[in-house]
Amino acid sequence: MQKKQGKQTVMFSNPVGIYSAASVVGPKEGEGPLGTVFDRVESDIMFGKESWEKAESEFARAAYETVIKKADAAGSIDYVIAGDLLNQSTGSVFGLRDTNVPYLGIFGACSAMGEGMNLGGMLIDGGFADKVCCVATSHFCSAEKQFRYPLEFGAQRPPTSSWTVTGAAAVVLDGSAVNGPKIAGCTTGKMVDMGSTDANNMGAAMAGAAADTICAHFEDLGRQPEYYDIIATGDLGYIGSELLSELVKRRGYNIADRHEDCGIKIFDKEKQDTHAGGSGCACSGVVFASHYLELLKRGEIRRMLFVPTGALMSPISVQQGESIPSVAHAVIIVSE
Amino acid sequence: MQKKQGKQTVMFSNPVGIYSAASVVGPKEGEGPLGTVFDRVESDIMFGKESWEKAESEFARAAYETVIKKADAAGSIDYVIAGDLLNQSTGSVFGLRDTNVPYLGIFGACSAMGEGMNLGGMLIDGGFADKVCCVATSHFCSAEKQFRYPLEFGAQRPPTSSWTVTGAAAVVLDGSAVNGPKIAGCTTGKMVDMGSTDANNMGAAMAGAAADTICAHFEDLGRQPEYYDIIATGDLGYIGSELLSELVKRRGYNIADRHEDCGIKIFDKEKQDTHAGGSGCACSGVVFASHYLELLKRGEIRRMLFVPTGALMSPISVQQGESIPSVAHAVIIVSE
Repeated sequence: MQKKQGKQTVMFSNPVGIYSAASVVGPKEGEGPLGTVFDRVESDIMFGKESWEKAESEFARAAYETVIKKADAAGSIDYVIAGDLLNQSTGSVFGLRDTNVPYLGIFGACSAMGEGMNLGGMLIDGGFADKVCCVATSHFCSAEKQFRYPLEFGAQRPPTSSWTVTGAAAVVLDGSAVNGPKIAGCTTGKMVDMGSTDANNMGAAMAGAAADTICAHFEDLGRQPEYYDIIATGDLGYIGSELLSELVKRRGYNIADRHEDCGIKIFDKEKQDTHAGGSGCACSGVVFASHYLELLKRGEIRRMLFVPTGALMSPISVQQGESIPSVAHAVIIVSE
Repeated sequence: MQKKQGKQTVMFSNPVGIYSAASVVGPKEGEGPLGTVFDRVESDIMFGKESWEKAESEFARAAYETVIKKADAAGSIDYVIAGDLLNQSTGSVFGLRDTNVPYLGIFGACSAMGEGMNLGGMLIDGGFADKVCCVATSHFCSAEKQFRYPLEFGAQRPPTSSWTVTGAAAVVLDGSAVNGPKIAGCTTGKMVDMGSTDANNMGAAMAGAAADTICAHFEDLGRQPEYYDIIATGDLGYIGSELLSELVKRRGYNIADRHEDCGIKIFDKEKQDTHAGGSGCACSGVVFASHYLELLKRGEIRRMLFVPTGALMSPISVQQGESIPSVAHAVIIVSE
C-alpha cells in the first residue's frame, strides 16, 4: 500500500507498537480525577531541586527512567525525541542530557507528544530504528514565569486561562511488538493562525489548528468521525473544545459524541480551580500514557485519534502584537 | 541492505537528492569571503521590519520563497522542517506560518540544518514524503539580545565569542532526483556535555559533541577520514576547530587535512572583527546551501560529511550555573 494518503496523512506499512509508557506528575495532578492511574505522583512540586526549570527537567528524567525500566529497554533505544515549552527546550535537554542516546529535539509547543510519536513511528516504519522513546514535559511554575507573570506577583487568572500540567510523559515505540496498541499512521498538521492575540486563551488559539488537522485527516482517508471510538485533543480545554466542535461542524463533521480533551480530563473543574482546563506538553502526554493507553490495552477503546495541540507563540511575539499560530498533529492508534 | 549501521548511523536505501537550496543573508555576511555566492544579500539588517525578531522571520520567509521558486516546488512540498535559536522558535514559526505545508518544528540550536536534512532524508527514504523543505534561520541582533547583552549596552565581546550569522537557508530534498548531490545517510548525535559553562565560548562547548558524532560515524561504518574529501562542521570557529582536531586525534583519527568549518569560512577574521568565527543556525545552513552545494554540483567535492553543531543552553540554564550540553548531527553527502 502507498504510505502517503492525501495531502497530510501517511499510513504505516507495519503498525508500530506502543510498547510501554510512563507518566510522572506533580501534586495537583495527583489530586485530580486521574490521580490513581499515573505511574508516579511526586508530592514536591520542586522535585527536590532549587529552581522550577530544574524541577521540570527532573520530571522528564523520572519519566524517561521509569519507561526504560518498565520496557526493559536500557541500551536498546535508537532515538529519544523530546520537546517542551521552555526557552531552548531547557526542560527536556537538561532532563535527558545523560541518556547517551541519539537525540532529536522537537518544537511543537504542547503538541510535542503528537509530533514525537508521529516522527518516531515514521522512523521505525521506515527502517531507521527499532525502538524510539518520545518524551514531553511541562511545569506550571516555569511556564507561568516564562509566558505570563511571576507567581509571586499573584496576578488574577482570567476564566479563559488554562493550568499548565506539571509532569512528564515518556512513551517507547517498538516496531517488533506483536500485541497491544499500535500507531497505524499519522496526520501532520499545518500551522493555522486564526488571528487570536490573547495569551490567556490558548484554547481559542489552538481550536483552528485542531479542526484543520482533524478535517484533513478525514478527507485524506475518506473516513467519518464514526470510524473512531475516541477523538482526543491535547489541551483545548472547555473553551477550545466548544470551538472545535463548531469549526468541524462547519466543514461537515460532527465529532461531539466522541470528542474528549486531555485538558478537561486531568483536572476537576469544580474542585481544582483550573478555569479552562489543563494544558502544557505534559497534559496530553500523561493523560495518554496512563488513562487512554490503559483503555486501549483493555480493548475498551479500539480505534483512537489522538490529537495533541500546540500554540506557537513566544512572550516576545505576544509583546510585539503578533497573533498566535497553532499546530495539531494526529496520531492514529488502533488496538485490534 | 540493512539501513541501521552501528549505533547511531543509518544508510538510505535510495540516496535522497538535494534538489535546490537558497541562502539569504545580511549585509555583514554579504561583505565576507562568500558574499558573491549567496542567492541574496539583504542590505538592511532589519529587512524592512520593526524588530529584530520580525527581521529574522523575514529572512526565513525569503529563503523559503526563494527555494520554492528555484525548485519550482509550489504546492509539492510534503513537510517543512524548521528550527532556529529564538525562544519558542519565533524566527522560523512566524516566517513560515503562511506556507500552508505540514510543519515539523525542531530544536537542535545551531545544528538545526543537520537535524532537518537528516529527518527529511529519512522521511523521504522511508516512503513518507516526496519532497521536504528544511529551513534554518538566525539573526545577530536577536541572538545577542536573547543570549547575552542588549546591543545598546555595548558590552565588549571576548576573543572566544562568535558572531551569529544573520540570514536563513532553505534546502529542498527530493527522493526522485536523478542527478546531482544526494544524502546517502546520516549519523544522529547524542547530547554531550563537557562541563563548559562559558556562554561566550560556544566552540569549546560544541567541540565534544562534534568529535563524538564524527568518531561514532567512522566507527559505525568502519570508515576512515580519508573516505571524505571534506568534513565540514557547522560553527565551531577557530577555537572549537582546534579542540575538535585534538579530540578526534585522541580517538585515533586525524581529520586536520580535510576539516573545514562553516563559521571560519563565512567571515574574514582579519577584516571583519568576528573573533572566534561565525555561528548560529544560519551559519552552517547558508554556507552549505551556497558554497558547498556548488562545489558538490561541480564535482569538486565528491564525498562530504556535513556536521552542523549546536550548543543547547538557554539564558536561564546559564544563569542557574548549568554547564552547556551540545549536539552535532552528521549528514553524508555524495556527488558521484
